[in-house]
Amino acid sequence: VPAPDEFDLIRRLFAPLATEPGALGLTDDAALLDCPPGQRLVLTTDAIVAGVHFLADDPPKLIAQKLMRTNLSDLAAMGAAPVGVLLACCFERGAGVEWIEGFAAGLADDCKAFGVSLLGGDTVATPGPATFALTAVGTVAAGCELRRSTARLGDRVWVSGTIGDGAFGLIAARGEADKLRADQVRFLAGRYRLPEPRLALGQRLAGIATAAMDVSDGLVGDLGHIAETSRVGAVIEAERVPLSAAVQAAISAGLGQGITTALTGGDDYELLFTAPPAADSQLAALAVDLGLRLTPIGTIIEGSGVRVDGPDGKPLSFPTQGYRHFRP
Amino acid sequence: VPAPDEFDLIRRLFAPLATEPGALGLTDDAALLDCPPGQRLVLTTDAIVAGVHFLADDPPKLIAQKLMRTNLSDLAAMGAAPVGVLLACCFERGAGVEWIEGFAAGLADDCKAFGVSLLGGDTVATPGPATFALTAVGTVAAGCELRRSTARLGDRVWVSGTIGDGAFGLIAARGEADKLRADQVRFLAGRYRLPEPRLALGQRLAGIATAAMDVSDGLVGDLGHIAETSRVGAVIEAERVPLSAAVQAAISAGLGQGITTALTGGDDYELLFTAPPAADSQLAALAVDLGLRLTPIGTIIEGSGVRVDGPDGKPLSFPTQGYRHFRP
Repeated sequence: VPAPDEFDLIRRLFAPLATEPGALGLTDDAALLDCPPGQRLVLTTDAIVAGVHFLADDPPKLIAQKLMRTNLSDLAAMGAAPVGVLLACCFERGAGVEWIEGFAAGLADDCKAFGVSLLGGDTVATPGPATFALTAVGTVAAGCELRRSTARLGDRVWVSGTIGDGAFGLIAARGEADKLRADQVRFLAGRYRLPEPRLALGQRLAGIATAAMDVSDGLVGDLGHIAETSRVGAVIEAERVPLSAAVQAAISAGLGQGITTALTGGDDYELLFTAPPAADSQLAALAVDLGLRLTPIGTIIEGSGVRVDGPDGKPLSFPTQGYRHFRP
Repeated sequence: VPAPDEFDLIRRLFAPLATEPGALGLTDDAALLDCPPGQRLVLTTDAIVAGVHFLADDPPKLIAQKLMRTNLSDLAAMGAAPVGVLLACCFERGAGVEWIEGFAAGLADDCKAFGVSLLGGDTVATPGPATFALTAVGTVAAGCELRRSTARLGDRVWVSGTIGDGAFGLIAARGEADKLRADQVRFLAGRYRLPEPRLALGQRLAGIATAAMDVSDGLVGDLGHIAETSRVGAVIEAERVPLSAAVQAAISAGLGQGITTALTGGDDYELLFTAPPAADSQLAALAVDLGLRLTPIGTIIEGSGVRVDGPDGKPLSFPTQGYRHFRP
């Protein structure tokens, strides 16, 4: 089996994804991109490492799709429409062409699904674990961008979809959810492996939401970022947090840390946003229009930090809030 | 010694480099960037891996600076002015705060030197070799962008600065150039470790050069990319290729593969461009104005590929043209 040649890989697998003319077929030093008048560029980057952010034996197609979708989720959280991505691929030295083809197939599927062009990239071989860094580029009409730092006192706190699927999905993907029904295991693992960036929702929240972000590191910790940057406090009513039937079953079966896993685990990629109570009916209509659950789960209050009230009205406490990379 | 906390690292070391207001202090999901009317965005990305692109015991400050400069060199090759960078850092799990501080110091120096803002990033710990991916963002006036694919028959081929310093610089940096004088070793190693992106030149070549790229993978191979994308051939006169005194000494001393190393080695980060003979005097004046050597080394001809004529007029042949990442 001949070793892959990076120029051949780029020409055969990646250049066809460079659908924007300004990508210059990936044959130049850089890509050219026009920003329509009245629009602002939105830029975000994320890195993932085998053994840290994904399992070395995960299907390469899903690795590419998750990387793409988590970045598009950041664009969604800003209210942006995606335009393109730049991708730095550090493939394992021993990676066969088949693995790389699988990765490119995932990229191709999601470029098509989300109307995104590959704009540039770099392909190298690493002696270490496979590592990928993706930069996503989007546009948003000036004035329509959603920020974290602009929540206001008295706003309601909302989330899209259901919370905790990502964290229990990791447990399911690891094969540690045998107590659940097979369809629930499949549902949760699917939510973990292939999140759905809430792009349509983000773009529709302009003029409605006061602040927004995506739930990637865990609901409680992420709401803490909105509270901190907005210099307010927030309270969540635990009972209001929307849970899928599968997560409810997982909690009943004693998986993970129960509700703590749902509220502090990561990888949901739902949108977390704030809006004044006057927007309730608009948001109810938007939920119907998008076919996406939107649920008020709490309130922005004076002070700092995030309090989670349990069913009995007493605050819950959590051992950790989100993943930390550097541990002794 | 406590392990570094990524939120603390971002706040303390990286957020101060986010000088663009749209970077939102690195506290949001993404950065916002305005593109002035009449300007196009220019985007490029590169990844580097310890043990492949740099040595694990290289000073972290220089690693950051080289990563920054090689990407800015790509912007220079498009005729663009730099605006900002997004940086994905996969630090080694055992990296101490001091190492990371050194890396951030290099980034800080070059952000300042080149007027660049950090726009976003991601900081993770990897069990493998340190790996970094940088996306550079610049702007160029529409119509002033330099491309590879637009060289024309009869154009002269030009290079800035001197060629081969990067390749012999790697030999020097490895301590394998003891036959040279210490100041030559220092010069070459410096050229390898801390290249100078030719940003001013790139921006001044608009309207003069017909095509351009930067010399990163080796002069002959890189000119091959201009020839291929422009569907022309090119001939270089080896004797005309500008060599520094240190490279001339290295060749005389029998280091590396002699002239082959100079012409096919990488890491020069000079600009390689084409221009019609009518531009000779303009380019001579520009060289004086910039205080930068600009040398015509060959011609664009019909056909395909790159021929290098030796001093006796006979074509030279080279065993390899540029580094390949995936080898059996």
